[in-house]
Amino acid sequence: MVKVIRSTIIEAPIEAVWAILRDFNGHDRWHPAVTTSQIERNREADVIGCVRRFQLADGSELREQLLTLSDADASYSYCLLDTPIPLFNYVSHVQLIPVTDADHTFWQWQGQFSTPPGEAETLATMVGQDIYDAGFAAIRAELELEATDAVG
Amino acid sequence: MVKVIRSTIIEAPIEAVWAILRDFNGHDRWHPAVTTSQIERNREADVIGCVRRFQLADGSELREQLLTLSDADASYSYCLLDTPIPLFNYVSHVQLIPVTDADHTFWQWQGQFSTPPGEAETLATMVGQDIYDAGFAAIRAELELEATDAVG
Amino acid sequence: MVKVIRSTIIEAPIEAVWAILRDFNGHDRWHPAVTTSQIERNREADVIGCVRRFQLADGSELREQLLTLSDADASYSYCLLDTPIPLFNYVSHVQLIPVTDADHTFWQWQGQFSTPPGEAETLATMVGQDIYDAGFAAIRAELELEATDAVG
Amino acid sequence: MVKVIRSTIIEAPIEAVWAILRDFNGHDRWHPAVTTSQIERNREADVIGCVRRFQLADGSELREQLLTLSDADASYSYCLLDTPIPLFNYVSHVQLIPVTDADHTFWQWQGQFSTPPGEAETLATMVGQDIYDAGFAAIRAELELEATDAVG
Repeated sequence: MVKVIRSTIIEAPIEAVWAILRDFNGHDRWHPAVTTSQIERNREADVIGCVRRFQLADGSELREQLLTLSDADASYSYCLLDTPIPLFNYVSHVQLIPVTDADHTFWQWQGQFSTPPGEAETLATMVGQDIYDAGFAAIRAELELEATDAVG
Repeated sequence: MVKVIRSTIIEAPIEAVWAILRDFNGHDRWHPAVTTSQIERNREADVIGCVRRFQLADGSELREQLLTLSDADASYSYCLLDTPIPLFNYVSHVQLIPVTDADHTFWQWQGQFSTPPGEAETLATMVGQDIYDAGFAAIRAELELEATDAVG
Repeated sequence: MVKVIRSTIIEAPIEAVWAILRDFNGHDRWHPAVTTSQIERNREADVIGCVRRFQLADGSELREQLLTLSDADASYSYCLLDTPIPLFNYVSHVQLIPVTDADHTFWQWQGQFSTPPGEAETLATMVGQDIYDAGFAAIRAELELEATDAVG
Repeated sequence: MVKVIRSTIIEAPIEAVWAILRDFNGHDRWHPAVTTSQIERNREADVIGCVRRFQLADGSELREQLLTLSDADASYSYCLLDTPIPLFNYVSHVQLIPVTDADHTFWQWQGQFSTPPGEAETLATMVGQDIYDAGFAAIRAELELEATDAVG
């Protein structure tokens, strides 16, 4: 099993970040990898068990299911149901925590998954960079914050 | 702040117990204190943030909001919005864990709240006995299990 | 990565079970697989980072390090440093929770590890049965409780 | 019960911050409120249950007990045993989490306690500012980092 953990500080209050991230069907508005997204069966996007079906720029389609959502903890979890990318048993967890002395937000995004033999490293880098780090940058842009000079 | 923690073993697989408890609007079918229950605004009962409005035998009405729901962890949290009983800032958490060697279920039900001065002990006993312990017994009856000889 | 989770109910108060389990160097007195055990460098057995070196009936030797210990939560974690058995990156967590209505104890014992290709299933069964389930039975015997009819 | 939560970002790797904070008897070297500190009964400072007895500038003395310590999670918990300040049932938790994209450290320090009637607000401010925020600043100084312009 591969485990990828990425985290960052968003220079905005947790309420502003959570207002965007909480919408399980809103990632097509901010994440650069996602072009369109729909919740299946006309459910609301904050029903536990709802499935988002979304499309990437190359036309490929993925389905992910909401497992856990907590307004109290500003966190949610989801798993990947169908994907053209060989990420097996992929489960991901998003967690926000306030940074009280600056009114900023600590954001941790992590995922666990299996891969075909020999592909673990490549896929871990892809998830960490193209999904998580790219998502951090996109939320900064969405909130009109300056980019940070990351070292990671 | 008062904290009440009660736990029990239900002699049934976790899937059977979770199938009943997961329905945030289903407590009027099994909990002896609840006569009728409705989810407000026609929402589904597993939407985070949905509100259940329910009535007790004496006609009084309460409103509770779903804060957290996790199928992965077999757990949920809720808070009390309106109540004729002086339980302030009441937040409750329900957690199931499998007992693997017997295929039974460990169930912990806890709540935190404030009360008017001098009423903490009475209300803690009421919550522990009339809500949590009575709920344990009711789920046993619902699953047609024998009552246990509790010592608590 | 392999994950093994086993749990049971010990028909004794949590204080009685924790009094035995808390001693990281006490497993040679109750676990049937362990014949002798010592803490290295004359440290106390509840120092975080201490290492227990212990011997099995066949004369083989293992070393395990205490990672986490909490009296507040009745839990601890440890990892395997040296072992003749091919369990790689083995980390284990022991957790007790009171069963309030009977004054009994819920005990969960879990481990995560990697194995050589093709050995995952055999080693998962070994860990689950010979370490965890055998440990449950041994603590019952230590506390002079009756054996349960497990189904797992 | 009063709950105080403060958090900050330390612009240093988690290993550097944890190396200082992990020493339960090291606060007299960095925290401005503490002048001297000793572990009772010649125990090591990472024994769960050990007690640190320490003195403030005004000569008053406090005793705190280590409840939980985890190198795996970079966290520990402790409670207050004896104090001239009316903080009752005080339990505190320190948690570090890496900020991966900048190799910095998120640090959350929280406490729960009761107070005499009417003193909750004053004591919450004292704990938040004089213990937690002052500790954040002291660790920055210890690591020779620049002070931040906090808004909190």
